[in-house]
Amino acid sequence: MAAMADSVRIIPLGGLGEVGKNMMAVECGDDIIVIDAGVMFPKEDMLGVDLVLPDTTYLVDNAPSVRAVVITHGHEDHIGALPYVLQDLDVPVYAPPLAYELVKVKLEEHDTLRGHELHEVQPGEVRAFGALSVEFFRVCHSIPDACGLAIQTPLGTIVHTGDFKIDHTPVDGRALDLQRIGELGREGVLLLLSDSTAAESPGHTPSEQIVSEGLKHVMADAPGRVLVATFASLIARIQQVVDAAVHDGRKVAFAGRSMMDNVKMALSKGYLQAPSGVIIDIAELELLPPERQVIVITGSQGEPTSVLVRIANRRYREIAVGEGDTVILSASTIPGNERVVARTLDDLVRQGARVVTPRTAPVHVGGHGSQEELKLMLRLIEPHYFVPVHGEYRMLAAHAELARAVGVTLENVFVLEDGDVLEISEEEARIVEQVPAGHVYVDGAERFDMSSVILRDRRRLAEEGFAVVVIPFDHSRGQLAGKVEVITHGFVDAARAQELSEQAAHLLANQVFNNDGYPIEWGEARQTIRSALGALLHRETGRRPFIIPVPVEV
Amino acid sequence: MAAMADSVRIIPLGGLGEVGKNMMAVECGDDIIVIDAGVMFPKEDMLGVDLVLPDTTYLVDNAPSVRAVVITHGHEDHIGALPYVLQDLDVPVYAPPLAYELVKVKLEEHDTLRGHELHEVQPGEVRAFGALSVEFFRVCHSIPDACGLAIQTPLGTIVHTGDFKIDHTPVDGRALDLQRIGELGREGVLLLLSDSTAAESPGHTPSEQIVSEGLKHVMADAPGRVLVATFASLIARIQQVVDAAVHDGRKVAFAGRSMMDNVKMALSKGYLQAPSGVIIDIAELELLPPERQVIVITGSQGEPTSVLVRIANRRYREIAVGEGDTVILSASTIPGNERVVARTLDDLVRQGARVVTPRTAPVHVGGHGSQEELKLMLRLIEPHYFVPVHGEYRMLAAHAELARAVGVTLENVFVLEDGDVLEISEEEARIVEQVPAGHVYVDGAERFDMSSVILRDRRRLAEEGFAVVVIPFDHSRGQLAGKVEVITHGFVDAARAQELSEQAAHLLANQVFNNDGYPIEWGEARQTIRSALGALLHRETGRRPFIIPVPVEV
Repeated sequence: MAAMADSVRIIPLGGLGEVGKNMMAVECGDDIIVIDAGVMFPKEDMLGVDLVLPDTTYLVDNAPSVRAVVITHGHEDHIGALPYVLQDLDVPVYAPPLAYELVKVKLEEHDTLRGHELHEVQPGEVRAFGALSVEFFRVCHSIPDACGLAIQTPLGTIVHTGDFKIDHTPVDGRALDLQRIGELGREGVLLLLSDSTAAESPGHTPSEQIVSEGLKHVMADAPGRVLVATFASLIARIQQVVDAAVHDGRKVAFAGRSMMDNVKMALSKGYLQAPSGVIIDIAELELLPPERQVIVITGSQGEPTSVLVRIANRRYREIAVGEGDTVILSASTIPGNERVVARTLDDLVRQGARVVTPRTAPVHVGGHGSQEELKLMLRLIEPHYFVPVHGEYRMLAAHAELARAVGVTLENVFVLEDGDVLEISEEEARIVEQVPAGHVYVDGAERFDMSSVILRDRRRLAEEGFAVVVIPFDHSRGQLAGKVEVITHGFVDAARAQELSEQAAHLLANQVFNNDGYPIEWGEARQTIRSALGALLHRETGRRPFIIPVPVEV
Repeated sequence: MAAMADSVRIIPLGGLGEVGKNMMAVECGDDIIVIDAGVMFPKEDMLGVDLVLPDTTYLVDNAPSVRAVVITHGHEDHIGALPYVLQDLDVPVYAPPLAYELVKVKLEEHDTLRGHELHEVQPGEVRAFGALSVEFFRVCHSIPDACGLAIQTPLGTIVHTGDFKIDHTPVDGRALDLQRIGELGREGVLLLLSDSTAAESPGHTPSEQIVSEGLKHVMADAPGRVLVATFASLIARIQQVVDAAVHDGRKVAFAGRSMMDNVKMALSKGYLQAPSGVIIDIAELELLPPERQVIVITGSQGEPTSVLVRIANRRYREIAVGEGDTVILSASTIPGNERVVARTLDDLVRQGARVVTPRTAPVHVGGHGSQEELKLMLRLIEPHYFVPVHGEYRMLAAHAELARAVGVTLENVFVLEDGDVLEISEEEARIVEQVPAGHVYVDGAERFDMSSVILRDRRRLAEEGFAVVVIPFDHSRGQLAGKVEVITHGFVDAARAQELSEQAAHLLANQVFNNDGYPIEWGEARQTIRSALGALLHRETGRRPFIIPVPVEV
């Protein structure tokens, strides 16, 4: 059921536990706009999965109505799915300047730029899409040119904050457009969709300013070389590192492909600025004394192929750390990566480096507004309806509490899940239906969906391993006709498999292939065999591997 | 090489990245004492492993010298390996009172109590083991009766702190024996081994006192029932919950087998105290109004079979949460468990509960001393040599820094790894050799060691799955003689497997079974088949599953 022209529908479509984080749809009559198209990073139980994409089923089913994808900012979880989504949907993309550059690079990489319209939008500009029009307004986040959206609809204005924090002293000097936000509120806002990532954190997220100070102090105290690991997309952070290096009389080199690509683009577009001669090649840097060197690298999440991890494992030819070196981890650790990051840091310390993390010095702050900032946004906008987005369920619930605390009517606050359709009419707002909003897994060249047994099988294989049981038998006489062989991986070692082969042969001879002179019906026997072998292996080992009986008729 | 009678050797034997956490040996001539025998909890890359045990190879090789296992406190990571270690070593165990009770229960469960000497030692008492004698002194930790050890050796006193914090207002009122610690220091200490878990945390770990206040406030604010999830071994925390409940006019019930077992023991031994009628059965509790109910449960780490997780999944018959309920998570989340704990809390919030965590209220504090406490210990003891223990490498390095900062000579500080043998003689201390200190994995009824390929295979299975390729062939004619079948799990779906079967048949017919009239040599062909199929599957799917070719000669 599509939206009526006199109603507006809001549909969060992808978040992997963080509702609406990666994709949302706003629909009015025959017009749909899509907000963001980001990838999700697989959780640890999604074994072997490379990327997770939002489900485009609803959008494909309504393809003639989809007018545009509008991008709030250039982080992977907001733009990374575009190369895939644009295979399914032929629609123009609108993005603020830095996101525009990042999307362009990405689509070129995937060879999907050709034939797709990509438009750059300046903060403050408005674009019309049928009954809907979208105004981009500047917010602060951990990447330049992050925007919120003010969407004009026949029923009123919808404000989507995008990811934001309220930083009065951002690195690039461009604070969020509080005045326009206040003006929107004064004009009247039908619905606010607001970032809930830090809705459980009391107070105010510190300004990036404190990271500038923190980096300067750590560099001043560092007796030798300084390595800084951070996200390649944290352009503002890289600027802070360059500034601190200049302040301390150091020069800066970069390592890691994504880091070098982003720095090159950021320098050419003016997002990154440095006095002449400060940014140099790593080969030149090595000619300087250690106390004049800074190297900015990838690997803050312990990614196995990143520069930081390869240095920790002594597998990076160009850089080795030792006594006197300081490694700064200028990023928070994404839940699930704690162990691998800790192991990486331990290996660096073993080689003599000092490590500095956000736990030991102010070298990172979050990019999302805490409770006081969220309340300020709610007070400025004073929305009629409120939907917390971009957060796990308890964060959304915490954000809903904040909204109620600052005066939003209880019944006008909706905590949605992905796929919920919130329909707003002149009279009321309510959840009217659910549309498909599962996820699609990308693994190598294959894609599969959540309902696939593949992940369930992988989980069991990861815990228990498997046993192929090759069973040579004489069909006509109903007897074993050779050596039963158990081939296992991830289950028991080779010697134990040999023992189990003999026990299996004994069991099969007695329980299955014991009707001498009578032919055996394999179809019936297979289940018997599987359960008899399963019971044997569980009794002997306490485990339940996958069992693949392979009959070999001789 | 054993220790000479005129030297002392210190050997950390098990920690899984936290050096010496679970087992250490102190050796002098023909006398060895073992400090603690704990289990390690498997890391997320140890797929399917239930428990990790310290390696007893060195102790078994020197069994005639091993005099005793002395236990510092009753946590699983200090006592949990005893049932296994006592299978390999027939030695008496000495433990402070609460640990004694917990070990007794544990050995009875494993049916290994019979024939093993288990001795209760009061704080302040001394036990002699050949050339070594051990004095137990009281420290504070998140379990009652935690002790440090003062070990007299011919070369001087070795002090081992065990796990400790300096809490002047502990729940049971029994603070650590600072006076005896000072006296030991005044008498002169050869070597200090000290807990490094919180060596990266500046300042002072808060007293348990603030948790008592925090729990009281949360209960007073809770409109209905309160559920508290914590570790079953956190007896002191359970006392705090009971005290807060009494203060707020509530009664308390318990759920979860380990929780109920521990509470029963703690009540009978006086570790847990409550006014008559406060602790009641869960069936009685339900007769009270919600605002008079408190339920203490297991599941603070998101363990799949725990009460909290079963409630979250609506699979716990006795308890369902809803609007008005408050769930307190009174424990820190062990790294690696963040995602599953977050998911559990989200599911509780979905059902209407409010959740309170250490991030949102003071309902938990750590059990390990921070930097100021570690410095105080170092100042009281003023050791000649110092070895930081119980911590990941960078924590040990941080603790070593603290030791240097408070005046321990740089060359007298040794950061060891498990298996390093530190030998102290009259003249000097140095690492003289390495002994086996790997780990043993317990999985179901099997044990295997680190060098096993089983875990490596599981990791690959988890990422890629497997493909069994059944290949019927005519040996004498060197040709395929039936339908090639690809059976897969965790790789591709059934329809895709069918397609791949046909492609594999085509490939094999052309590349392997194409010598019409000539017999085929299976041994040679197997490698060709495996690599040809591997290339095919990788080209088609971008993945590299395990490939098991099963020849079926017909």
